[in-house]
Amino acid sequence: MLPEPFPMFSALDHQYMAQALRLARRGLYTTTPNPRVGCVLVKEGRVVGEGWHEKAGRPHAEIHALQDAGESARGAVAYVSLEPCSHHGRTPPCTEALIAAGVARVVAAMEDPNPRVAGQGLDRLREAGIETALGLMEEESRELNIGFHSRMTRQRPWLRLKVAASLDGKTALNNGQSQWITGPEARRDAHGWRARSCAVLTGIGTVRDDDPRLTAREVSTSRQPLRVVVDSRLETPLNARLLEDGGVLIACAVEDARRAEALRQRGAEVVLIPNVAGKVDLPGLMEELARRGINEVLAEAGFKLNGSLLREGCVDELLIYQAPILIGDQARGMFDLPELQQLSGKRELDIRDLRKVGRDLRFLARFRTHPSI
Amino acid sequence: MLPEPFPMFSALDHQYMAQALRLARRGLYTTTPNPRVGCVLVKEGRVVGEGWHEKAGRPHAEIHALQDAGESARGAVAYVSLEPCSHHGRTPPCTEALIAAGVARVVAAMEDPNPRVAGQGLDRLREAGIETALGLMEEESRELNIGFHSRMTRQRPWLRLKVAASLDGKTALNNGQSQWITGPEARRDAHGWRARSCAVLTGIGTVRDDDPRLTAREVSTSRQPLRVVVDSRLETPLNARLLEDGGVLIACAVEDARRAEALRQRGAEVVLIPNVAGKVDLPGLMEELARRGINEVLAEAGFKLNGSLLREGCVDELLIYQAPILIGDQARGMFDLPELQQLSGKRELDIRDLRKVGRDLRFLARFRTHPSI
Repeated sequence: MLPEPFPMFSALDHQYMAQALRLARRGLYTTTPNPRVGCVLVKEGRVVGEGWHEKAGRPHAEIHALQDAGESARGAVAYVSLEPCSHHGRTPPCTEALIAAGVARVVAAMEDPNPRVAGQGLDRLREAGIETALGLMEEESRELNIGFHSRMTRQRPWLRLKVAASLDGKTALNNGQSQWITGPEARRDAHGWRARSCAVLTGIGTVRDDDPRLTAREVSTSRQPLRVVVDSRLETPLNARLLEDGGVLIACAVEDARRAEALRQRGAEVVLIPNVAGKVDLPGLMEELARRGINEVLAEAGFKLNGSLLREGCVDELLIYQAPILIGDQARGMFDLPELQQLSGKRELDIRDLRKVGRDLRFLARFRTHPSI
Repeated sequence: MLPEPFPMFSALDHQYMAQALRLARRGLYTTTPNPRVGCVLVKEGRVVGEGWHEKAGRPHAEIHALQDAGESARGAVAYVSLEPCSHHGRTPPCTEALIAAGVARVVAAMEDPNPRVAGQGLDRLREAGIETALGLMEEESRELNIGFHSRMTRQRPWLRLKVAASLDGKTALNNGQSQWITGPEARRDAHGWRARSCAVLTGIGTVRDDDPRLTAREVSTSRQPLRVVVDSRLETPLNARLLEDGGVLIACAVEDARRAEALRQRGAEVVLIPNVAGKVDLPGLMEELARRGINEVLAEAGFKLNGSLLREGCVDELLIYQAPILIGDQARGMFDLPELQQLSGKRELDIRDLRKVGRDLRFLARFRTHPSI
């Protein structure tokens, strides 16, 4: 198929789509497993309706915007940060509501990667005589829903690996002491990344060393991420603090009915996902999480699990908080990776974002070789 | 002594001093061992003369500016990025030239830390009836000549330690391979730091592993830094490439007349500066370099000498080029430092500058505890 003519968008188009994306961001912590979507209705150079999707099962962004606009929706242009749905899911299709309201034009940032939509929403609108345009601020829309795109197109979540390290690349002393390498601003910032993630992943080593809760407490959120523990031999202590808040999945590699039952009594779900080496099959765990509707995963683990996730190709990007301190070469490193004989074997990243968070720096770096979404 | 009233400077004053500092920077690669100084003469709202110091033995910035202004200097205001000298050095005192030219007012960014000047220049001008003001953009002037200030006030050079590392804090593979972790832009940038340094310092390990020249080749400069090798047992190979360009000082800790003579034949100077452990006394070497008029030192060494310089308190700031790559924990770290038992023993830095250089990041980080200049 030949590419369609490159769509031309005006500065005003960009402005309204940017507004739709800002609205979409309001659902950052809550839309799981749905994507974050915003919608702006514009008529005669004036915004007549705004909407965003808050939560699965509740109305989509378009419906809120149409309700907000009322009769003014007739003849308006709808800017939507994702293609309107055309299928009956938990709510009726948005395409029908847009048609019924008499919207004249729909501009979508990108196609919905959900195979149940995937262009059919726009097709349906065009069939109904509505003008459509696609691709305005597509990159921004994809980034906002990178986990949703990953799950729809790769059947695995987007995995972001968080590490707090010193300037010399160390994450903890050899005695396990790691609190605190980075400052309070970095910890607060990291809670925001937990809040937007569908799941926070850690390993049994971190559970034993730090006994973390892994909930998002330093930001305001009505939803907590699923906490996932990679615990091959079901060694999670029954008094581990993360069991106190519910919503815990423990992935193991051995059958141990007694331990599993004890953990279930503490409210955790236990799943057996072994690989041939008798460890948890990490790519398998990622597929399992995708099946459960998990879009974004934040891994907050230690040296060993970090290395395993990297080696097994599960990591899409690194979120590094770097403190301007030196700890010394004897301390624990960031990732357990095999020794290279040639520098050509290095793993290359692109720094996508870099900013100061308190006294620390925050890097968001993406692997160059990660499979495209 | 009570502090003098806080001097008030206008926006125009700042503008002219900034111009003087820009002129001063033209001597960045050449004024050794003198400070970089610029001068602007302003009369009736117009710049009537500009000058900067290029090279020791040549006229100072003020003299160039007075020559540039000619008769217009009479009644002008002189903005100088450092207090004018009042002593006969290799050139006659600038104070006398300013007085003779009939300058009405002299604004200096800061006092000359040289004990032979140290306020006497401004005193002399005031005695001659010239109005003076001090402290305009003092911080910028000090930073521009941080090595000169260090040598004058601490009798040691300012030592900047350069490291090229991966995102996981590694500088080389265990087999010594380190070319190239960072990109060509970072290497070019580092040559600029060599060019502004009076000396580049390295260790015998780096000479053996990488056989570097340590000259500034990728920037245009008429002067090369002294190359200093820390080589306790005089093991520098006679065919080492850095011996080819002259201007090499080898600091050793053992007397070995034969080796020393062979190296002298190759054009190097050999100095014996041992400590009680039979290694080179690094603080002693710093004092020796200061006695030789060395202001700024750029250390480009490996894991061991980096660690020794840090442990012995010789390092004032780090210049880190960080490549967005992972090499793995088995590779060589940045600094050989003793293991900490408590995180409270960490060494804290302030990030003074952070920018992208090609694909890499460049940090300039200063130790919080470094003795104030």
